[in-house]
Amino acid sequence: MQFNFRLQKTIEERDSLVCVGLDVNLQKFPIHLKDAEDAVLQFNQAIIKATSDLVVAYKPNLAFYEALGTQGWSMLHQTLEMIPKGIIKIGDAKRGDIGTTAQMYAKSLFDLGFDVVTVNPYLGLDSVAPFIEDENKGVFILCLTSNPSSRDFQYLETSGRPLYELVAEKVVQWNKKGNCGLVVGATHPNELERIRAIAPDLPFLIPGIGAQGGDLEASVMAGTNAAGGLSVINSSRSIIYATSDTHFADAARREADKLRQAINSVRVKKK
Amino acid sequence: MQFNFRLQKTIEERDSLVCVGLDVNLQKFPIHLKDAEDAVLQFNQAIIKATSDLVVAYKPNLAFYEALGTQGWSMLHQTLEMIPKGIIKIGDAKRGDIGTTAQMYAKSLFDLGFDVVTVNPYLGLDSVAPFIEDENKGVFILCLTSNPSSRDFQYLETSGRPLYELVAEKVVQWNKKGNCGLVVGATHPNELERIRAIAPDLPFLIPGIGAQGGDLEASVMAGTNAAGGLSVINSSRSIIYATSDTHFADAARREADKLRQAINSVRVKKK
Repeated sequence: MQFNFRLQKTIEERDSLVCVGLDVNLQKFPIHLKDAEDAVLQFNQAIIKATSDLVVAYKPNLAFYEALGTQGWSMLHQTLEMIPKGIIKIGDAKRGDIGTTAQMYAKSLFDLGFDVVTVNPYLGLDSVAPFIEDENKGVFILCLTSNPSSRDFQYLETSGRPLYELVAEKVVQWNKKGNCGLVVGATHPNELERIRAIAPDLPFLIPGIGAQGGDLEASVMAGTNAAGGLSVINSSRSIIYATSDTHFADAARREADKLRQAINSVRVKKK
Repeated sequence: MQFNFRLQKTIEERDSLVCVGLDVNLQKFPIHLKDAEDAVLQFNQAIIKATSDLVVAYKPNLAFYEALGTQGWSMLHQTLEMIPKGIIKIGDAKRGDIGTTAQMYAKSLFDLGFDVVTVNPYLGLDSVAPFIEDENKGVFILCLTSNPSSRDFQYLETSGRPLYELVAEKVVQWNKKGNCGLVVGATHPNELERIRAIAPDLPFLIPGIGAQGGDLEASVMAGTNAAGGLSVINSSRSIIYATSDTHFADAARREADKLRQAINSVRVKKK
């Protein structure tokens, strides 16, 4: 099944656009967990158990697992195994390398268990191709990122139009197997609307809600398709580190539920 | 010591611009090694032992270690430990993420033992900043890559100039601590000359020689500075997979020596 179709089906079945970012950071962990040997796995297990009925996807960012050292890759693998079947597993890797190397990245990330990974567009199509060979697996390609320095290059005008629009157009062309999507930050709601117009059928991964200050209502209005779907809204820190006491999982559930309801109330207006 | 100064000093002391890419690929390994449990470490140990007096740097590409699964990160760490003191350790990671995440990537790569890592410019300065905070550690930022699809975005004209030139200009501005360099593929010798004119004082990491067909003489002429330095020329497959029989390390030494001599004969002309 083409990845984008499967994602949209999952969104509808679960009635949720919420993606929880599993960005494990020992310094932010609940105090009672900090000294446990398997703190990362205990933490992720608790977060997943508390939120899995509310989300469409989980998104571990690989940086946080690499920072754990030689055990990081194994913990990431075990975390993916904890995620209930049917929920989308997004590998936030932002990889981008020449063809032969991109093949290795694609193999290792998909073998690990991810359904879809984030990829940087700077190296062009041959760096993306190995990730989209199999229609069942997908990519979210960085288009307009949520960070302040996205202005350094992504807004540069070429033929009177910003680079990020040209990236969106290229990705529409690359989407021959129905498995390409875009990353567009919630910190740019106006641009999100323009990008949605360029790529009406691509799924968007929208980070930048919560700690990064993106506008939720505007992002959902601008980012979803006409039926209020085809987008995944990520929140990491605001959910998983909602509190650092022993009730962190309950607090995460409350935040995830609040986010899901806030998003769905906007989607209802759109339908 | 500022990283760029240290790199140039190492180039002079070792009289070499050669970087050997340690891109371990079990499928290409010598037959007699393939079944060994520690094939990767045996292979890297033999390659390093046979070539270390000829090189200025080694460059493991992280994709090839991630593809080894949960043991990959540990093998990468052990490989870095094998490299004799004084030789530059380049982490070819091509990372690029928002500030808080970039901090994690920088920490994990430098803690692992790398002196310098490759970084993708698409997300702008805040994604690079954590990598250049410490003047002793450096970055090579992707400017013009060696792959055919580099044309997709890197050549897009903005204000009548290609994007890769604007990247080079920005990186010159970012080089406040003397620890920023550029990645420019040997497959673009004319552009290499233009980029050297824009960034006369930045070190270049030049891949694309050998299997990728880049022009060695033209690249050394165009890529080095006036004194024939400030560049690192990488070759991976042509050296480490020169043969697949039991004499692979001797063959690697021969290829590395040939490359060093070929480069140095061009440098002599320039001096």
